[in-house]
Amino acid sequence: MHLDHTGLATTDLDSLLFCFEDLLDAEVAHEELFDGMRIAFLDVGGDYLELIEPVDGEGAIAGYLDANGPGIHHLAFATDDIEAALERAREQGVELIDEEPRDGAWGHDVAFLHPKSTGGMLVEFVEH
Amino acid sequence: MHLDHTGLATTDLDSLLFCFEDLLDAEVAHEELFDGMRIAFLDVGGDYLELIEPVDGEGAIAGYLDANGPGIHHLAFATDDIEAALERAREQGVELIDEEPRDGAWGHDVAFLHPKSTGGMLVEFVEH
Repeated sequence: MHLDHTGLATTDLDSLLFCFEDLLDAEVAHEELFDGMRIAFLDVGGDYLELIEPVDGEGAIAGYLDANGPGIHHLAFATDDIEAALERAREQGVELIDEEPRDGAWGHDVAFLHPKSTGGMLVEFVEH
Repeated sequence: MHLDHTGLATTDLDSLLFCFEDLLDAEVAHEELFDGMRIAFLDVGGDYLELIEPVDGEGAIAGYLDANGPGIHHLAFATDDIEAALERAREQGVELIDEEPRDGAWGHDVAFLHPKSTGGMLVEFVEH
């Protein structure tokens, strides 16, 4: 398990990209429209930031932004066996948001864990 | 510039360590008391999470916890020349919380940028 990316919720993806590209010597590695969100993965020296802007004011990210404003939304950890990682989390008593992996951005399989089981931090598992 | 660590604000460092060590196959790399905070750096496959618990209810992290509850507090990026990174941020018009580097945890030099200049994300520069 290692850090895959850190997810950032923003209402202005273009400005945040412009700021971070310059400030952090970062480059856009991937962009897509996914499930009502504009998503850009920014490569910062080999680490990824996932910038997420809701397009239509609907969904979990829009709800987060309404409640909290822009901010660091989640931590995603990569595994080569997401089913096993979820099973291990279950055995540890962690409540899951996604009981089964689902399609995520960039063609990856993803599953979110409930932050009430992980000290208030929203954790995602990712399998490429 | 690359990601140095992600900083997590918690009211219960021990429980969060226990959870993440098991869930993420992580190991404590460093622990210290620093400036009124218990701090633990957790190594997750070569990436670091910095878990921070205020000891005395004072300071920026205690204020963050009062306002927001536990959560992902900041993104720290490593540079081998923090003075140059700050000067470049200044030239870009970024407002700084720390105009000069100061002593941070684990013996590193650190400086924070104001989130109003970085899309609401709290960004730290770190020089080891």
